[in-house]
Amino acid sequence: MLPTILTTNDATLASTLSNAINNKTKPLGSLGRLEQLALQIGLIQQTTTPVLYDPAIIVFAADHGVVAEGISAFPQDVTWQMVENFLSGGAAINVFARQNNIALQIVDAGVNHEFGERNGLIHRKVASGTRNFAQRPAMTPEQCQLAIQNGRALVAALSGNVLGFGEMGIGNTTAAAALMHKLTALPVADCVGAGTGLSADGIRHKQKVIEAGVALHAGVNEPLDVLACFGGFEIATMAGAMLEAAARRKVLLIDGFIVSSALLVAARLQPDILDYCVFSHQSDESGHARLLAALEVNPVLKLDLRLGEGTGAALVYPMVQAAVNFLNQMATFGSAQVSEKSAG
Amino acid sequence: MLPTILTTNDATLASTLSNAINNKTKPLGSLGRLEQLALQIGLIQQTTTPVLYDPAIIVFAADHGVVAEGISAFPQDVTWQMVENFLSGGAAINVFARQNNIALQIVDAGVNHEFGERNGLIHRKVASGTRNFAQRPAMTPEQCQLAIQNGRALVAALSGNVLGFGEMGIGNTTAAAALMHKLTALPVADCVGAGTGLSADGIRHKQKVIEAGVALHAGVNEPLDVLACFGGFEIATMAGAMLEAAARRKVLLIDGFIVSSALLVAARLQPDILDYCVFSHQSDESGHARLLAALEVNPVLKLDLRLGEGTGAALVYPMVQAAVNFLNQMATFGSAQVSEKSAG
Repeated sequence: MLPTILTTNDATLASTLSNAINNKTKPLGSLGRLEQLALQIGLIQQTTTPVLYDPAIIVFAADHGVVAEGISAFPQDVTWQMVENFLSGGAAINVFARQNNIALQIVDAGVNHEFGERNGLIHRKVASGTRNFAQRPAMTPEQCQLAIQNGRALVAALSGNVLGFGEMGIGNTTAAAALMHKLTALPVADCVGAGTGLSADGIRHKQKVIEAGVALHAGVNEPLDVLACFGGFEIATMAGAMLEAAARRKVLLIDGFIVSSALLVAARLQPDILDYCVFSHQSDESGHARLLAALEVNPVLKLDLRLGEGTGAALVYPMVQAAVNFLNQMATFGSAQVSEKSAG
Repeated sequence: MLPTILTTNDATLASTLSNAINNKTKPLGSLGRLEQLALQIGLIQQTTTPVLYDPAIIVFAADHGVVAEGISAFPQDVTWQMVENFLSGGAAINVFARQNNIALQIVDAGVNHEFGERNGLIHRKVASGTRNFAQRPAMTPEQCQLAIQNGRALVAALSGNVLGFGEMGIGNTTAAAALMHKLTALPVADCVGAGTGLSADGIRHKQKVIEAGVALHAGVNEPLDVLACFGGFEIATMAGAMLEAAARRKVLLIDGFIVSSALLVAARLQPDILDYCVFSHQSDESGHARLLAALEVNPVLKLDLRLGEGTGAALVYPMVQAAVNFLNQMATFGSAQVSEKSAG
C-alpha cells in the first residue's frame, strides 16, 4: 500500500499568494525564481505565511550487483568507505549540511559491508547489495517492497517539514539510467553519462550493459517492477521516503541524477508528488537535464555539480529560505508608503 | 589618483590549490562551479586556507536627471522612498542580508531628497541627482572624482574581506545601458531593457533617448569621461568602492546590470579587478547577459532576478561560503582512507 498524495493545486490560495507576492516593494516579478518557490511552498503548507523547521537530509547508501560488469570508475569498496566518511563528518554533504543547519541522517539501505553498531548510522539493510541486473532482476518484489516500507518509516519518524534526499552507491548512475530509459522511453544513449568519471569507451560499455539488461528483462514495464528489476536499495528506499514525505506535505529537496530517478519512479506511481518537489540543481551528469525535461520541471541552480550525496539539496536550501523570508518579511507598497508603477 | 590593483595570478599557488581541491573525497571536478570559486578565493587571499569574515553589502542610492525624459516605469520619488524602506528593514535586500548575516550599509550618493539625520544612513551626497544627459553631461569631472573618492573612503573604513555591491536609483538602467554601449561598443538596442517594467514602446523610447544622448556627446570616449557624462552618482561612488576593495584584496560580490556597469568602468581603468569579482547572478534585465559576455565572465546563479539592491550578491554568499568551507573542511582520499579512481 502506498500513501495517497494530494495535489497542492488551490486556485483561491494561489491567487491570494500571488497578490501578496506582487504587493511587496519590488517591481512585478523581479524576484524571479524565488517568487515561484514562495508560491509553491505556500501551496504545500496551505498558508500565506509558510515556515520552515527542522530541515533534514537523508543520505541513502547501497551497493549494486551490476558493478560486476565494470561500469564504474571507482571500486565498490568506495560505497562503504564513503559511508564511514559521512559518519566522520568529512564528506561534502557534511560540510554543506553543517553550514546550512540541516540535520543529516545516514542510512545503510543495502551496502555490501558489515558496519556493526556505529554512532549515527541507521541500519535498514535489505541485503548486501542488489544482484546484477545483467543476469537477473536486481531485487525480488519482496525486497523492493521492504525497501519502500523502510523509507516510509524513516520519514514517518522525522519532525521537520523540509526533507532533502541524497545517495551514495558505486554503480548507481547505471541503475538510474536504466530506470530513466524504462520510465521515459528515451534511448539508453540519452540516459547514460560519465558517472564518477568514465572515459568515452567506459560510457559506451555502460550503455551496452544497460541495453543488454533491458533486452533480458523485456517484459518488465510497470514502475514497481522496473524499480525491482533495475533499481538499487538506496533508490527504492528513497522512493518510499519521497512518497511518505509528500503525503505528509513536506517540501522535498531533489538532488541530482540518481535522486531524480527515484522521484521518477515515485511520480509514475503518484504524479502529484511533483507539486512538493524543489528541483535543487541541474547536474553535470549528462542524462539529468533530459530527465528534468521529461518531468517538465526546472532546476533552481546550475553549478555543474555531479557529486550526489544530497549536496545540491543542501546548497539550494538558502534559496528556499530566501523565498519564505521575503514572503514573510518584506514590506508592501502600502506599509512602506512606496509609490507604485506609474507609466508603461 | 586611483589605487593600483594587482592580478591574483600565481601559477604555483594555483597548482597547490588545485591539488588540494582534487584530493578531496569526491570525483574529480564534481563540485563544478564551487571548485572554481574556491580556487579564485584562495588566489585572492593568497592562501590554501581562505577565511571569510565581516561580510558587508553597500547599497548606493542616487537620482538621475534623465528621468525627465520619461524613461522609467516608476516615479523618481521611489528612490528616496526605497531608501526609507532600506532603513526600516523592509526591502528584499534587508531580508536576504539578515538571513545570511551580512552587514548592510545604505549610502545616499546623490538622492534628490533631504533625509536629515537618519539612523543607519551614510551621507555622501554629491548633488541632488545628476543632470539630464539628454541635454548636458550628467556630472562635472569634479563631481565624478568626488563620488569615486567617496566610494574609496567608504571601503577603506570597512573591516571585512567580502564586499557586495547594490544600488537603488530610478532611471539607472538607462545610465547603465549608456555606459555599456560606450564602453563595449555594442549597439544601444543590445544594452537597453525593461528596467523596473517598461512596455515595448517604453523600451523603444528609452533606446532613442540614449541614442540621442550618445550623439550629443559624440567625442566622449575615455572611461572616466564616459562615467561623468552618462553615469549616476551611485554608479561612480560604487566604481570607486570597487577599485579600493580590489586593491585591498577583498572578494567583490557583483550584483546585476547596474552594478556590472560600474564594474565595467572600473575594469576599463584597471582590468585586473576582474580577478577579485564573483559574478553573483545573471539578471533578467536583457542587457546583463551581454554585458557579462563582454567581460568574459560567468555568473554563479541564474534566478531571473531583476531587482537590484544587491539582492543577487546577498543570495550568492552561501555559495561562496560553501566553496571556502569544502576547501577547509572536507577530508582527503588519504585522510579518510577512501580508495581512488581505478578504471577508465
